[in-house]
Amino acid sequence: MEQKMEKLECLFCRKRYPLDVFSSFCPSCAEPLLLFYPTKKRYFYLDRVLALERFKDFLPLSQINPKLSLGEGNTPLLLLDRLMKKFNFPSIFAKNEISNPTGSFKDRGTIVAVQKAKALGMNKIGTVSTGNMAGSTAAYAAKASLKSFIFVKEGTPQEKILSTGIYNPFLVKVRGDYGQLFFESLSLGKKFGIYFMNSVDPFRIEGYKVTGFEIFVQLGHKPPDYIFVPLSSGGHLIGLMRAFLDLKKEGLIHNFPRFVGVQAKGCSPLARAYERGKSRFKKFINPQTIAHAISNPNPPGGNIVLKMIRENNGLILSVSDRELLKSQKILAEYEGIFCDPASATTLAGLIKLSKILTFQKQDKIILIITGSGLKTMSDLESSSMNIIKTSIPNLEETIKDVLF
Amino acid sequence: MEQKMEKLECLFCRKRYPLDVFSSFCPSCAEPLLLFYPTKKRYFYLDRVLALERFKDFLPLSQINPKLSLGEGNTPLLLLDRLMKKFNFPSIFAKNEISNPTGSFKDRGTIVAVQKAKALGMNKIGTVSTGNMAGSTAAYAAKASLKSFIFVKEGTPQEKILSTGIYNPFLVKVRGDYGQLFFESLSLGKKFGIYFMNSVDPFRIEGYKVTGFEIFVQLGHKPPDYIFVPLSSGGHLIGLMRAFLDLKKEGLIHNFPRFVGVQAKGCSPLARAYERGKSRFKKFINPQTIAHAISNPNPPGGNIVLKMIRENNGLILSVSDRELLKSQKILAEYEGIFCDPASATTLAGLIKLSKILTFQKQDKIILIITGSGLKTMSDLESSSMNIIKTSIPNLEETIKDVLF
Repeated sequence: MEQKMEKLECLFCRKRYPLDVFSSFCPSCAEPLLLFYPTKKRYFYLDRVLALERFKDFLPLSQINPKLSLGEGNTPLLLLDRLMKKFNFPSIFAKNEISNPTGSFKDRGTIVAVQKAKALGMNKIGTVSTGNMAGSTAAYAAKASLKSFIFVKEGTPQEKILSTGIYNPFLVKVRGDYGQLFFESLSLGKKFGIYFMNSVDPFRIEGYKVTGFEIFVQLGHKPPDYIFVPLSSGGHLIGLMRAFLDLKKEGLIHNFPRFVGVQAKGCSPLARAYERGKSRFKKFINPQTIAHAISNPNPPGGNIVLKMIRENNGLILSVSDRELLKSQKILAEYEGIFCDPASATTLAGLIKLSKILTFQKQDKIILIITGSGLKTMSDLESSSMNIIKTSIPNLEETIKDVLF
Repeated sequence: MEQKMEKLECLFCRKRYPLDVFSSFCPSCAEPLLLFYPTKKRYFYLDRVLALERFKDFLPLSQINPKLSLGEGNTPLLLLDRLMKKFNFPSIFAKNEISNPTGSFKDRGTIVAVQKAKALGMNKIGTVSTGNMAGSTAAYAAKASLKSFIFVKEGTPQEKILSTGIYNPFLVKVRGDYGQLFFESLSLGKKFGIYFMNSVDPFRIEGYKVTGFEIFVQLGHKPPDYIFVPLSSGGHLIGLMRAFLDLKKEGLIHNFPRFVGVQAKGCSPLARAYERGKSRFKKFINPQTIAHAISNPNPPGGNIVLKMIRENNGLILSVSDRELLKSQKILAEYEGIFCDPASATTLAGLIKLSKILTFQKQDKIILIITGSGLKTMSDLESSSMNIIKTSIPNLEETIKDVLF
């Protein structure tokens, strides 16, 4: 069995370190380390069913165990023709990550990290999350027969607790600072042999590349012109950009897509740094937004994102809660997509950018829809919906009222 | 453009009627009519992306408009290896319909009915539903730019209201008998030109066939030995059986799978009729089960199901709420699948059947997982979960307690 020779690499000081799943931050720079592995010519295997197997040459896995899969990936790329007409936009597509097994893009990263955990013979994994990553990690741990430790903030909404607890992890509600908990989990993980696959875990990030490869294939082996991504800890955007960097390295693309990271204004440390031309962000004080899934005031991958966005002609924007909630409604009412508030930042960001930038008619624009609205229903208000009460004898009159 | 010559047919009196989307019950037998259309030799088109296009020869659509798709179908078939070990079962697979766009199998039927509605130039559709079908119909109506009328029972849980209302249908909460509302909707639909694509709509039923074809292809162009399906109005089971009848007609299979319809004991009109050897069911009095998605005391397709099950060596079982809730937990804890209580009847039914019937080692058994647990979270109890509260300074002690 061929073993891939993975190392961890710091994008800032370019130092390389031996692989250590318990410790993936640069000892000199304190930035997250990413994977480095030498590669030969890489191919797609598009006759395979599993997403990981289709793009295995681009992943840090020597072997893929199909029994660990929950059917992640292979998500639809939907042409948003009604939005295009409404806003006079060029071709807009939604890459709909909601159809992943636990309803979010996180499954893409979790499967790669879990493959690694099993290959290394580990039996305990964990994560620190406020939502989607908690459910995803617990679900894959269940399938892989791994013990899992899920740390959530005190006060995490009940819908997040239930949709994670159902998989029977050790679900730990922790009082205290969330940023501190992130680093505490890594140090306890090392101590107790628990692989904490948190937001910027290097294997998790490699998993997000697969989404990028799928978009490339779905567009007929061509890159899009723009990719809008909700931006929080940075792991997802880093993974997506790495996919297209890989494609460029392989000579499969010449034009690099323009990445647009979108934050919620109420928690926008990276948009703020980007606007001010800074290469490092500052912790965002007093964050407040309805887009909980992207509300990280101190994103661990933030400086990498700023660096990669700058090097690749990307952009970082922020949108208000009012704008993103409006976009959430538009996506549902025009395109039949019920996403969470965080995902809706992509459309809100596109609408905002369209006011200051002229798109070309032939442009292809991707919105990455990261998570399901079913897990954030407590944020919805039925008052804005068309709800009518009636009885069977009055039903005919009710319909007449609506129609005429 | 070739027009398929669809007629409606009564399986009981074998009379045929011209197509009428507003009226699909037999005037003589009062049973739902199913589609009949002459066919030539039929092929699969497995190089296509859209599920409908892959199996278009088997569908009553002259043309498929890809713009109406939300990416339904192509759902994973997952080997449940941990359950196989736990229960010493032969090969068990979950056909996971949760990954459909709105989180349930209903999308398969809705897309076919919506394709037809658009082809016929209609602009209004509707449905009567307590849950999954409501959200599905509203979502596809949004995408297709159709007005939609969704009738739900008074007292429908808020999570179902919100996950439907988000798509901006006319959502009508109706006081009165639910069975009566079903037929009332059809008569009002005819009056006002609203195509009510209810549970046993003939086009909806044809859509469910695609799931059957996918299973056949996913098993390497072989039929499974058993297919367990949650059973309520009957539409889903009728569609799945019709898929394998089509495959038999085309000479693609010789052994017909054994279908097992599973009802919740608290609302089991068909299991009761089946056990008593009756060819007609009686309305179930005072239904009471946590599996709301399959709680139909007077299933419109019930007599067709009894006939088809009898003719094809199938079975109908019922399981208690305790059994199905236990199976819901097992599916999550062992296989990482978080389904609704209705879907869990399949595993509960399999466990029950395994006590009275000996499976062969080489048997392939399918459980159809019909809907997401995310829409029924109010039924879950966190008391049965491993939830621990602690603070950052005490986290290490907490982990030690768990581990040692």
